[in-house]
Amino acid sequence: MAFQMYLNKLIVDSDNPDITEERLKATFDTDALAAELKGGYKAMDRRAELHDPYPQSYMTREEKLDNSCRKVTNLFKQISEFVDPTNHTEMVHLLRSIVGVEGYPLALHILMFVPTLQNQCDDEQMERWLGKAMKAEIIGTYAQTEMGHGTNLSSIETLATYDRRTEEFILHSPTTTSMKWWPGGLGKSCNHAIVVAKLIINGHDYGPHNFFVQLRDSETHSPLPGVVVGDIGPKFGINALDNGFLKFDHYRIPRKNMLMKHAKVAADGTYTKPKHSKLGYSTMVYVRTEMVMHQALYLSYSMIIAIRYSAIRRQGEIVPGVGEVRILDYQTQQYRLFPHLARTIAFHYTGQEIRTGLIADLHALSSGLKAVVTFQSSQGIEQARMSCGGHGYSDASYLPTIFSCAVGACTYEGENMVMLLQLSRYLMKAAQYARNGKPLGPLVRYLLHPGNKHSKLKIPNDGGTIQTTQNPLDYANYLLDYEHICRQLVFKAYGRLNELRAGGLSSEEAWNMNAVEMCRASRAHARMFIATAFFNRIHRVEDASIREVLEDLLLLHLNYELVDQAHYLDGYLSSIQLSYMKEELYRLLLKIRPNVVSIVDSFDVPDRELQSVLGRRDGHVYENLYKYARDSALNKHDVFPTFEKYLKPMMKRYESKI
Amino acid sequence: MAFQMYLNKLIVDSDNPDITEERLKATFDTDALAAELKGGYKAMDRRAELHDPYPQSYMTREEKLDNSCRKVTNLFKQISEFVDPTNHTEMVHLLRSIVGVEGYPLALHILMFVPTLQNQCDDEQMERWLGKAMKAEIIGTYAQTEMGHGTNLSSIETLATYDRRTEEFILHSPTTTSMKWWPGGLGKSCNHAIVVAKLIINGHDYGPHNFFVQLRDSETHSPLPGVVVGDIGPKFGINALDNGFLKFDHYRIPRKNMLMKHAKVAADGTYTKPKHSKLGYSTMVYVRTEMVMHQALYLSYSMIIAIRYSAIRRQGEIVPGVGEVRILDYQTQQYRLFPHLARTIAFHYTGQEIRTGLIADLHALSSGLKAVVTFQSSQGIEQARMSCGGHGYSDASYLPTIFSCAVGACTYEGENMVMLLQLSRYLMKAAQYARNGKPLGPLVRYLLHPGNKHSKLKIPNDGGTIQTTQNPLDYANYLLDYEHICRQLVFKAYGRLNELRAGGLSSEEAWNMNAVEMCRASRAHARMFIATAFFNRIHRVEDASIREVLEDLLLLHLNYELVDQAHYLDGYLSSIQLSYMKEELYRLLLKIRPNVVSIVDSFDVPDRELQSVLGRRDGHVYENLYKYARDSALNKHDVFPTFEKYLKPMMKRYESKI
Repeated sequence: MAFQMYLNKLIVDSDNPDITEERLKATFDTDALAAELKGGYKAMDRRAELHDPYPQSYMTREEKLDNSCRKVTNLFKQISEFVDPTNHTEMVHLLRSIVGVEGYPLALHILMFVPTLQNQCDDEQMERWLGKAMKAEIIGTYAQTEMGHGTNLSSIETLATYDRRTEEFILHSPTTTSMKWWPGGLGKSCNHAIVVAKLIINGHDYGPHNFFVQLRDSETHSPLPGVVVGDIGPKFGINALDNGFLKFDHYRIPRKNMLMKHAKVAADGTYTKPKHSKLGYSTMVYVRTEMVMHQALYLSYSMIIAIRYSAIRRQGEIVPGVGEVRILDYQTQQYRLFPHLARTIAFHYTGQEIRTGLIADLHALSSGLKAVVTFQSSQGIEQARMSCGGHGYSDASYLPTIFSCAVGACTYEGENMVMLLQLSRYLMKAAQYARNGKPLGPLVRYLLHPGNKHSKLKIPNDGGTIQTTQNPLDYANYLLDYEHICRQLVFKAYGRLNELRAGGLSSEEAWNMNAVEMCRASRAHARMFIATAFFNRIHRVEDASIREVLEDLLLLHLNYELVDQAHYLDGYLSSIQLSYMKEELYRLLLKIRPNVVSIVDSFDVPDRELQSVLGRRDGHVYENLYKYARDSALNKHDVFPTFEKYLKPMMKRYESKI
Repeated sequence: MAFQMYLNKLIVDSDNPDITEERLKATFDTDALAAELKGGYKAMDRRAELHDPYPQSYMTREEKLDNSCRKVTNLFKQISEFVDPTNHTEMVHLLRSIVGVEGYPLALHILMFVPTLQNQCDDEQMERWLGKAMKAEIIGTYAQTEMGHGTNLSSIETLATYDRRTEEFILHSPTTTSMKWWPGGLGKSCNHAIVVAKLIINGHDYGPHNFFVQLRDSETHSPLPGVVVGDIGPKFGINALDNGFLKFDHYRIPRKNMLMKHAKVAADGTYTKPKHSKLGYSTMVYVRTEMVMHQALYLSYSMIIAIRYSAIRRQGEIVPGVGEVRILDYQTQQYRLFPHLARTIAFHYTGQEIRTGLIADLHALSSGLKAVVTFQSSQGIEQARMSCGGHGYSDASYLPTIFSCAVGACTYEGENMVMLLQLSRYLMKAAQYARNGKPLGPLVRYLLHPGNKHSKLKIPNDGGTIQTTQNPLDYANYLLDYEHICRQLVFKAYGRLNELRAGGLSSEEAWNMNAVEMCRASRAHARMFIATAFFNRIHRVEDASIREVLEDLLLLHLNYELVDQAHYLDGYLSSIQLSYMKEELYRLLLKIRPNVVSIVDSFDVPDRELQSVLGRRDGHVYENLYKYARDSALNKHDVFPTFEKYLKPMMKRYESKI
């Protein structure tokens, strides 16, 4: 039989037989799919000093911060013993394995502090600071967001006033809202920061600039005089990271601490402006690309957990008397999980596609992708959590933690509505070009196509199932339908914008009154890019068995996303075509079903990284749930102190009155 | 001016002027709207012993349990000093004010233990136990769910084997999965439980029955021999409640501890079965009704927080140079909040409508309502949280806690998919009756109507805005459109079910293969009931200014929900009608905008109950965010111990090698 050619290598004799049975059904080699998806990284050696003493869900925030700090400093002292530090994928998985999803105190040092120094220091500054930062002799963060302003950078209030007499900048926080708020690691861990402040010379405001600032004493770690710094308190997630606040009271730094690769201030206060105004774009695109990949990873965790658990959880009978079935056999369970499984892979390929950086106009697109991917990922993680029933609500599943950490990305690095509107600005401009017959870049060239009046989607004569591999051209018709949706929405929003202006509104007011319609267009555009990236990447896969599995997921994705957007189609798809797409969905759920455990096995995430009792490789969920529960802090003593303190006096209050 | 007639009474001189300006815009009296919504309960006196010593978000789980236990036992010792204990609404608000949303150790005692005794004890048992339970001399919970079985009650494994010699039942947990798992208060607080176990007499299995069981010693609170009991560990939310596990090792209880009002076991082992098989239905309907009201409350909290914060948060300019605007002025912000505000009120009225109990077939309907309301509420709370940007992610907003506690209701008391399928069963039966020309109850009578081929929704000649109060009949056309959607979906699912059977599937397999389509029909049916309840209740409001505010929200609701379900309409609505509904939405956002702060003020929730820095009545958010942050446990010392333990050794490792 075919499956014996591809025996899933995760099978171990002592496993839960329900999950072994699932693994035996696979029609492909999980190592081959893992290699396709991840480039075949391998699990890493791990040392005791990188282990958690007990589950992180049992820790207070103080303990979480202590634990992540211990692990990550041990790791950094000897990172090359664990992993090839130049291999980005390995690094991400190593960090997730070790610190989990709740963050770690050096995160912003690595992701923002060092890169900013690399991009914005002049040669002399590079010499002074970069080596120390790379060796973590100093630890820094990036302090831009203030309590009162995140999105609207031009309104930040922190001042850097140049004092020509002493050749210093005076950093000052004039109001409560001007305090820096949120930077990761700022609260307790970092002793330096890049601070974004308004540059003031001779009373003139030159706008936000970057300054290299020491915040704490190198020996004692005490905040320096003029600096008030601390932790902002507990959050929904990411609680092993000390997001902080920072307030300056006329704090002086040398002139040469302004990062001077681009803008410069001479000793006499002469200001030289940077040559290019949009220097930060490549960093932003880079960060958003990484976010797409991270969201795919978070979503993959939740899919592994929910699908493995659904393979061993038996509840209710479909046919009476035959015995309880795996919940994975319920159509509703498949329908709430498999489309998100397909998105996991779609997001992964989307990240790969934009990482190449070969795409024009990547900045606007990356904004929209960030918004759609972060929102849909968190939706998928929540569906995964709910699909696990009650046990999904327990921290033992790790799903609550994955959700609350992943969903933060809907807000940070650009709030999603603002992101969608950034893409809208680009799309409205493209619509204007299209109307005026001007040439357009490849991502919006579809606006120039007249399109079909009705979908050309082929339906087999019997209206039933078809062998999709025999109809490769159908993919093209699906993608034409996506283009149709985007064209409709972009031109509708563009037309409405012009109508509002014609009706007497200013451009800005019309923009605001049209924002909901424009966000719709942006979402559709991003979703089309995702579907296309999924399609493009799969067509490069050579191994036939892997390609078939991925094609099933692609087709599921194409149908699901189209049905989900069908209300924008308005007569373009016939009701027969729509019904057919739904039937295709149901057919694909059944087709994917036997492979689904092995698909998530191919995500190649070890139990230590997954941190989920429900998602264990071996399927032995129940005995380990009990083990997890027994370790609860509340179980240290059989009788919890509330009994003597509160319950007994209440229960005995009538007796004592006798 | 009109607003001076209705000066919002929450205005205080020292408030943030931004929020006062909002309150001055109201066209109605908040006390009158509060009275309409809540029957005009008043804030209660509060005593120091019911206060939190510091924010609950700073507490460990041990501290949370201690704190909620302290407050709730103090409260129960003297409840009548605080509140009229017979007034349900007052009680709910009092409990929320005091314990917050994270639960309390007596919750299941009140909600399940006492009511079960009241409904299922015979007279002798009532005499023995009810008084003690009512006075909280014993504390109990309801132990039904097991680790391996929640939904499928018929498969629970706990055994109650009758021993005729000693006239005792032997309670036993034969497997890991048979352990009771999840009952609230079971872990550490309760000393009794109603235990659901399979009754076995002479080797015959009589199925699940209820038993009154003492678990802990009355004096020492130690678990009794044969009982293993403990806490199941931390969860997504509700962490001030000790959900527990329970394992029996041949634990004996007297025969008379089986609850014997309905089924009975005589001393000789003779079993008498209950007269009615579906005794639990009224309790289930009651619990689900309460859940609908609670979800409306949770959603109202999130709306108060997000809308008040949006009124004082200024970010970005709409018209350049005019200054930063309140984020409430962005169309995207209105669009992500106001439809959920309308749902808040719709859910509230839905709860009122079903509370009357006058509706036939309430059991099936209540299943569907539970699923739709819990899911949409949690969606709304998350939208509220995200609409607050970064600060919404902080526990200071209280939104993460509200979400993680509220979303649990999607799972407990019947997992939502199972709930939707229960309603489906009823709808499929109704469709069968309709096809056979049999009479139908009022909730599904619409299945007998032929319906219109196209929507009769009226559109004014200019396609622009209309004065809705002049077109009262339009409501009826909206509701006819809802009926059309339901008819379409119910008959489509019914037809497909029959096709699958005709194609050779067994009834059960066909049912499973049709589950997704049937869930769609159930959701639409529940949403129609919600819209209708909203419509019905508003038409009883007499005060014209209140009625206008509520009608704006109703119309927003009707349009929003229809557009949201438009993909099921397939040609029934013209594209002109659809565009009109969208334009109506945008018009209504603007119309509701000036009243919106006063609408949430009318929810009449004091700051102590709201527990949110962002949602403060006075609008002084920023200084209080700073105050909250300074109290973070991590800020007890300027230098956190991780510096000496981990960071310094890492930073200095090269120096020490010199």
